[in-house]
Amino acid sequence: MTMSASDSAALAGRLPQSLAEAEALDQIEPLQRVRSAFDLPPDLIYLDGHSLGPPPAAARARLGEAMTAWERGLIRSWNDAGWIDLPTRVGDRIARLLGAREGEVLVCDSVSVNLFKLAAAALPLARTRVIHVEEGEFPTDAYIAAGLAEITGAGYEQVAPEAGLDALSRGGVLIKSVVNYRTAAIADIAQHEAAAAAGGSAIVWDLSHAAGVLALDLTAAGVRLATGCTYKYLNGGPGAPAYLFVRSDIADRLSSPIRGWFGHAAPFAFDRAYAPAPGVARFAAGTPGILSLATLEGALDVFDGVDMQQVEHKARRLGDLWLACTAHLGWPTASPTGGNQRGGHVTQHHRDGYAIIQALIAAGVIGDFRAPDGMRFGFAPLHLRYADIWRAAGRLSVIIDSGAYRDPRYSKPARVT
Amino acid sequence: MTMSASDSAALAGRLPQSLAEAEALDQIEPLQRVRSAFDLPPDLIYLDGHSLGPPPAAARARLGEAMTAWERGLIRSWNDAGWIDLPTRVGDRIARLLGAREGEVLVCDSVSVNLFKLAAAALPLARTRVIHVEEGEFPTDAYIAAGLAEITGAGYEQVAPEAGLDALSRGGVLIKSVVNYRTAAIADIAQHEAAAAAGGSAIVWDLSHAAGVLALDLTAAGVRLATGCTYKYLNGGPGAPAYLFVRSDIADRLSSPIRGWFGHAAPFAFDRAYAPAPGVARFAAGTPGILSLATLEGALDVFDGVDMQQVEHKARRLGDLWLACTAHLGWPTASPTGGNQRGGHVTQHHRDGYAIIQALIAAGVIGDFRAPDGMRFGFAPLHLRYADIWRAAGRLSVIIDSGAYRDPRYSKPARVT
Repeated sequence: MTMSASDSAALAGRLPQSLAEAEALDQIEPLQRVRSAFDLPPDLIYLDGHSLGPPPAAARARLGEAMTAWERGLIRSWNDAGWIDLPTRVGDRIARLLGAREGEVLVCDSVSVNLFKLAAAALPLARTRVIHVEEGEFPTDAYIAAGLAEITGAGYEQVAPEAGLDALSRGGVLIKSVVNYRTAAIADIAQHEAAAAAGGSAIVWDLSHAAGVLALDLTAAGVRLATGCTYKYLNGGPGAPAYLFVRSDIADRLSSPIRGWFGHAAPFAFDRAYAPAPGVARFAAGTPGILSLATLEGALDVFDGVDMQQVEHKARRLGDLWLACTAHLGWPTASPTGGNQRGGHVTQHHRDGYAIIQALIAAGVIGDFRAPDGMRFGFAPLHLRYADIWRAAGRLSVIIDSGAYRDPRYSKPARVT
Repeated sequence: MTMSASDSAALAGRLPQSLAEAEALDQIEPLQRVRSAFDLPPDLIYLDGHSLGPPPAAARARLGEAMTAWERGLIRSWNDAGWIDLPTRVGDRIARLLGAREGEVLVCDSVSVNLFKLAAAALPLARTRVIHVEEGEFPTDAYIAAGLAEITGAGYEQVAPEAGLDALSRGGVLIKSVVNYRTAAIADIAQHEAAAAAGGSAIVWDLSHAAGVLALDLTAAGVRLATGCTYKYLNGGPGAPAYLFVRSDIADRLSSPIRGWFGHAAPFAFDRAYAPAPGVARFAAGTPGILSLATLEGALDVFDGVDMQQVEHKARRLGDLWLACTAHLGWPTASPTGGNQRGGHVTQHHRDGYAIIQALIAAGVIGDFRAPDGMRFGFAPLHLRYADIWRAAGRLSVIIDSGAYRDPRYSKPARVT
C-alpha cells in the first residue's frame, strides 16, 4: 500500500476507522521497526505487557553469553566478563529511560525490598516519622510501609485515594505510584515533589507501571527516591530484578537499613566496619543475580535509539483505539479516558470479567484480570500494532455478542491471572 | 586398572600416596559418577566451588525451558509452567540437603536480605533485644546486624571469635555461620541450640559454606532459623537466589519485617490488609526471579540420589589430601587440620598469597584469595577427583619452588578474587 504525504499526515493525526487504516498506520508508525526485535508467539495478541513483557531476542542471546561465561570463566567472570559492574551498568541503561543521570540507578533486589530500603532511608528526610500510603495503591506498597513502621516505631497511615498530595503537608514519607496499577491514572510528579519540599516530606515513587512506557523526567520533576520493576514494559523476564533511583546530591547522606556486603565501599576488603559505597551503590545488599541481570541488559537493547516521547504517544493512541473500539460495550472504566492522564493500560469492569478474560485468552488475546471485576488491557508500544488492537477488539465483540464467555470452562478461579 | 577387593579396601581407607593411587581411588569412589553431570572446562582444576560452583548441564537445560515458557506462554506460564510454586518446590529440594522437612525452606532474595528478615523475626523469640555477631564472621553478617539494630533500636554487640556460645546465655539473637567462611571451622550446632534454649536466646544460622558439602541435620540439631546461598556447593549460578529455613512449629508465630505481596496468604486477592501466608512462605517478599530459580532447580539434579554422608566424607578426604600434599611448604593455616572439625575448604596463609593464587590460575588451578594473606582452596566433592588434588598440589609446588609467583604480572591488585 502506498499513500500520499497528505494521506499519511491525516492518518497519523486521528485514530484509524477500519482494519485497513490501522494496517496503513502501522506502516508509517516510527516504532514499528522495533517489533522484529522481539520473540513473539505467532497468532497471539498480547495485551499483557504491563504485567510481564515478552522476551526481546537479545535477552536470550545475552543470557546465553552469561551462561557460557559461568561455564568457561567460572569465578573469573566476575572480573573478566564484567559481572561486578552489571548492577550499575544496567542501571545506567535504565536511567536514560527514567530521565535520570548516570550513576543514579542501581539494579537490585525486588520492588518490595527496595521500597523497604528507600522508605527507611527517607524517614530522616521527613519532618515527622510517619509513612503514608493511599488506598488503592498496589497492596505491597501498603504492606511494606506497615511492616517498616512496626519495626522502626514510625507511624503508618493509609490515606484516601488521591489524598497523598494533602498528606505531604504533614511532613512524612509518602509511597506513591506514578501510574496506578489498576486505573493507570498518572500522578503529577512535579506537583507532588513541590508539595513535599514545602511540607518537609519525602516521596518514594513506585515507577513499576510507568517506566518504559512514559517519557519520564525524574530530574526535571525533582524526584529524590524511586524504585520500579523491570519485568513489565522493560521486558526483563519473569521476576527480573528491580531498580532503585536515588538523586545523586542526596545519596551520600542516606543509609540503607539492609547493609549487605555489595553495598560496602570495598566489599572485598572484608572490613569489620561497615563503610557505605558512594552514591546509589550503597543500596545494594547481597550478591547480584547475574543471569537475570544479563537477561535484562539484553532486553534493554530494544530501547536503543528509541524516543520515549514516541513510546508514550503510541501507548496512549493504542489505548485510545481500544477504548474507541470497545465503547459500544458500555463497560465502565476507572481509567482516565482523556489522553495524557492515563498510562499504558486501561482497566474496564464487568461482573463476568474473569470469564471474559479466559474466553479472550482462548481466542488468542491475552489480558489480565484483577479481582473483583477488573479486566486490564495493556498497550506496550514496542511490539503492539494498531491492527492488533483492532483485531483484539473484534474478537472481544464476538465473545460478548455470542455470550461465549458464559461457557462453564471459563468460570473456574485461578491462582494467578 | 583392576584391583583386588582387599586393595580397594586398603585404598579407600587411607590417603593416596601417588598420582596412580589417586587415580585408582577415583575409580572406586562412589561419587565419581556425578562428575559427568557438570559442564566443566577442560584442563582446569577448579578449587573454588566454595565460592562459585560450576554449572551442572541440567541447569542450562532447565533455564532454556524457562526461557521458552516465557517466550511461548508469557504470563500464562506463572500457572501453566508452575512458576508460582518454584520458591517452595526448589526449597523442598534443598530441605533434603539440610536435614529439614518439606515446607520448611523457601528460596528467595539474597543471604543479606534473609539475614535481615530472620534476625528481625528472631528478636521476639529472645529474652533481650540485642544481636550478637562474632568477630571473624563473614562481614555482611555483622553489617546486617548493625543496620537492623540501628533502625529497630535493638542492641548490637560484636563478640570475640567463638564467644557466641557464651553470649547465648545473655538472651539475645546470635547470627552464626555453621562453617566459617575463612577457616572452615565447623560450629557445633546442637551445642549452640541447647545453649540458646537454656539462655532464652535465638540463633540465625548462616549455612552458606555448609550446605551441599556437609551432611546437615537441622531437625536433629534443633535449629529454628537459618539461611544460606545457593551459588557455592549448590551450584545455582552467579548470584543465584538464597534460601531461608524456618522450623515449621514456630513459623506461624513469626513476622517478616519486609512484607511483600508474595508473602501474603492470598497475593492475588489484592487485599488492603496484610495477612501472612502460613509457614515459611510468609518470608517471601517480591516477585520471585524465575530464570534463576529454574537454573537452580536444574542444578540441584546432581544431588539426586546422592548420600550427603558420602559428600561430607569425600570433601574432608580431598582436603586432607591437599593438606598432606602441601605440608612440605610449611604454610600456616587457620583451618582445623583434624578431620571432622573442618568444612569443605582450607585457608592457608602466605604474605604473597595474592600472587601465588594468580600464578596458580595461570597454571590452570583456580583457588581464591581473601585479604590480607589468605589463600582459599575448596574441595567440592561432586566434581573434583583425588587426582585433581594431586595434580594441583604438584603445580603449586612448581610455582613455589621456581619462584614463578614473583613475576610482576601476578602482583597487581584485583577488585574481585
